[in-house]
Parts: sequence; C-alpha cells; structure tokens
Amino acid sequence: MATAAARAAIGDSEFDRDTAVVPRADEPGTYDIDLSAGWTIIAAVNGGYLLAVLGRALRDALPHPDPLTITAHYLTASQPGPAVIRTQTLRAGRTMSTGQASLYQTDEQGREVERIRVIAGYGDLSALPDDVRTSATPPAMPSYADCVSSDDAPDDGPVTGSTAILERLDLRLDPATAGWAIGMPSGAGDMRGWLGLADGRDHDPLSLLLAVDALPPTAFDLGLKGWTPTLELTVHLRAVPAPGPLRVALTTRNLAGGLLEEDAEVWDSADRLVAQARQLARAPRG
Amino acid sequence: MATAAARAAIGDSEFDRDTAVVPRADEPGTYDIDLSAGWTIIAAVNGGYLLAVLGRALRDALPHPDPLTITAHYLTASQPGPAVIRTQTLRAGRTMSTGQASLYQTDEQGREVERIRVIAGYGDLSALPDDVRTSATPPAMPSYADCVSSDDAPDDGPVTGSTAILERLDLRLDPATAGWAIGMPSGAGDMRGWLGLADGRDHDPLSLLLAVDALPPTAFDLGLKGWTPTLELTVHLRAVPAPGPLRVALTTRNLAGGLLEEDAEVWDSADRLVAQARQLARAPRG
Repeated sequence: MATAAARAAIGDSEFDRDTAVVPRADEPGTYDIDLSAGWTIIAAVNGGYLLAVLGRALRDALPHPDPLTITAHYLTASQPGPAVIRTQTLRAGRTMSTGQASLYQTDEQGREVERIRVIAGYGDLSALPDDVRTSATPPAMPSYADCVSSDDAPDDGPVTGSTAILERLDLRLDPATAGWAIGMPSGAGDMRGWLGLADGRDHDPLSLLLAVDALPPTAFDLGLKGWTPTLELTVHLRAVPAPGPLRVALTTRNLAGGLLEEDAEVWDSADRLVAQARQLARAPRG
Repeated sequence: MATAAARAAIGDSEFDRDTAVVPRADEPGTYDIDLSAGWTIIAAVNGGYLLAVLGRALRDALPHPDPLTITAHYLTASQPGPAVIRTQTLRAGRTMSTGQASLYQTDEQGREVERIRVIAGYGDLSALPDDVRTSATPPAMPSYADCVSSDDAPDDGPVTGSTAILERLDLRLDPATAGWAIGMPSGAGDMRGWLGLADGRDHDPLSLLLAVDALPPTAFDLGLKGWTPTLELTVHLRAVPAPGPLRVALTTRNLAGGLLEEDAEVWDSADRLVAQARQLARAPRG
C-alpha cells in the first residue's frame, strides 16, 4: 500500500490512467482506449474495470456525471490492448439522461467484435436531495487490521493464472469468507472485505463500478473452483463515497441451473450504502 | 376469478392476447402491437406488462426462448395504443443469445418517440442442468385464503386513477403489508402477496416479467403516496414456474436521494425461486 506521502489523488492514479478514454475529434461520442493488462484476473480483463471504462466514456458523452443505474452484458472476452467505445444518447432530461455504449476490439481476422454492451441512466449524485430512510445496515465484519490480505494466502489457492489486479487493490478479506484459500470454504456463498486502491486513491462513483466486481467470487466460498464468467452486471450508485476504504459484501442465495446471482452491497467509511449491484454469472463446474 | 371450467390456458388468455406482437413481413426483427388499456395503473401502462411485451418480441427474434436476464430503461411514458418494437440480435451462441429491443410510439406531432429500451440475455430454462444449491427460503406469509384482495380495500386508498390492471390479476396481499390501504402502513418497506392471473392462466417465463412489477409499490408501506416511476428494472428468471399462484415478496432497504430500490423475489408453488428482480425508482414526494 502506498505511503501517505505518495498517495494518489482522484484523477491521478493507476485507476484513472487505465480507464482514461480519448474522444475522437472527428467522431462525436466515440472513444479510444488501450485496455490495461494491469486489471486482469486468471485469463480475463476484470469486468468491473471494463464497466468503469465504459462508465467513463458515458460520463463524457452524457450531460450528467454519475451512473445512477448501469447494466453491462458481457458478450465476448475482452483482451488487454486497443479498443473503441461507441456511445449513443437515448434521452437527455433535466435531472437524468440515458445512454448506451459498446466496446469493440479487432480480432485476428481484422473484424470488429463487440465485447460489451452497456445501457445506463446518469444523474448527479451530489445534487440529489439529502433524505435517507434506510433499513439496511453495514455488514458485520472485523476491522481492516483483522482482515486478511492476499499476501497472507498460500500459493496453491483456487486462482491459477494472472492475479495482476490484486497488485492494484488494497483488499482485505473477512477471515470468515477467506477459508477457501486454505481449502476450507464456509459453504455459505458469502464474500466480504475492505477495499481500497493500492496507490491510495480514494473512491469516487467511477471506482465504485470496479468495487462491485473486485472481490473473489462467492463461488469460492461455496467450494467451487474455476472461472465464474459474468453474463450481466447491474450497478446502482446511491451516494458519493466518503474517503477511506469501502466495505464490500457479496452474497449468493441461489445457485441453480448452472447459474448464480451475486449480490453486492458497498458501504463507505461514513456507514452509507453507496452502491448495490447484482450480477448473473455462470457457475464454475468444479 | 375465473371458474375452473373457464380457466384460460397459456397461449389463450388476456395476458397472451394483450402481449401478442405481430412481426412485419418486410422488416425482420420489427413487430407491431396495440398496447392494451387493460394493464394501466393510475395514469400509466404497467412497467411489467410492457416488459413482457418486449420480452415476447425478443423471444421471437432470438434463437432461445427465455429471458435469463433482462433490463429495461423506461425513457418516456407509454400510452395505450399502437406501438412498434425494433429488435437487434447482438450475439447468438449455443446456449445463450443476447438481444436488444426498443418500443416506440408516435406522438401528437407525428414524431416517433422511444418509450423503453431493453437489453437481454436469452437461454432455455427447461434445458438448464438440474442442480439447485440455494440458501434462499420462501417468504413467510399467510396462506392465500388468509391474504386480502383489493375487493376488500376501502375506496379512499392511496391509488387514484385507473386500476384496470387489478381486474386482470388475482392478487392477495399479506395483511402485514396491506395496512397502507387503511392509512396504517407498517413503515418497513415490504410488500408481499399471492399472484395469479384473473382468468386462471398459469404463469410461464413471460408472465414472470409481469409478476415482478405487479404488486403495489413498497413506497406505500413506507407511508408514501403517489406515483413511483420505474427508471430501470432488471429481472433474472431462474426456473420455469410450476402451475398455481406465485408468492411475490418486495423489499426496499434504501430510500435515499429521492430514489429507492425495490427488490423482488418470486416463488412458485413448488417452493422454487423462479425470479429475482431489482428496480431503481423515483420515490413519491408524498
């Protein structure tokens, strides 16, 4: 983890650099990006990182800054390297706008292949009224100091392949949901942890899109091993996160027909529920 | 409620008639429909009915029959009357395909206005493997006979305007979540009920899209009155429902910034979790 002196700020961090999209001057609403290899896990580019990339393009294309609700369908596997994002504005209202974005890469035959399609409603989180009437409570979990880092894990855990993303996260798992790393999953289908960015950048609405898909999959806690490909991921951003690490709690209540849902709740240091997400994923065979 | 003798079958019911889409012979993937006034509530066409209409068009356009995950963004208010649906196939795989659909109506100036945009992943629910590992349990609620019908409600409840949809539903609310009808909301943000179709048609995957948005809004149980417009609704279908009425449980855990999420779980008569849904809606001012 970065020292306080070297702490990255929002706008000047690994996350900001690797999600930066470059608008094409001659094609309004079209953006180029070089997808970073720094956010891969196993053999794939992390789905939350990809969602943040598309979220940043829509943030530029739409008149409102924050994704209030954003849904991604993962069509084909993205690879590190060049990609183009095409956006479309569907509706621009006073308090909310709706847009669509697709990310494409060129395959070995030179054909453009769509990787992800996103549809989202954007607004301004900081302009929302102050009313909060919530019955939701933060997840019960140990303090940051009492949670475990991937540095503590043995080398023969269920993840084989790239773990590049772990170097960019400051992730501490609740020991109650980390037993899978030593072959003792709880079986409950839960995953909880503290989540910061390794370079010390605080969270903002865009990095919340990463946060909802940054923990190990709940399938590991169910005793399953292998890849859990996301078919669809929907995120609701509910508030601008306060500085400091987030608490992220994932739950799977229904694995059936080879599919599972993964529900995510993200809480900030001020005990505010800042994001809710749900994804439908294919369960690992293992 | 229909008598057993007059019981409508799947394919031959009010719901099937009113969601029937007519493919244009000369425009593949384009469909016409006359949106029925029979599924309106207050001043609006019900969002679940509209989702079922779009779901039926995609069912025709895509190579797989069932929406495994479907997301709708409600852009402008639909009106009863003619509409056109345009679909696009994004990806057609062996076990799953992905498509997009938009519903348009013509405004008073003769311009085509987009009402709803949907993106969905389709598969074949009856071809999924049989494995079920679920920790979810059906909602605790009284039997159908001990729940209350809208016929039991006083005339001065919070709903003013059309209640046409209620004539097409066989809806019985858990009395614990029906107090709002007599000015005594629980404040918890819950809504639970048994849900059939009034003409006796059993549920199928398409009518589950209606079911997730057919109960009164949880806002009523929070003591709020008025319209709760859906911004975005995502539904995951997890199994083909068994015959008989469904149990639908809605929960709101976070009302903040003028927005609320409404989570829906739908259980069939065989105690199987057949659908999970979440919507982001604007909270009523009242």
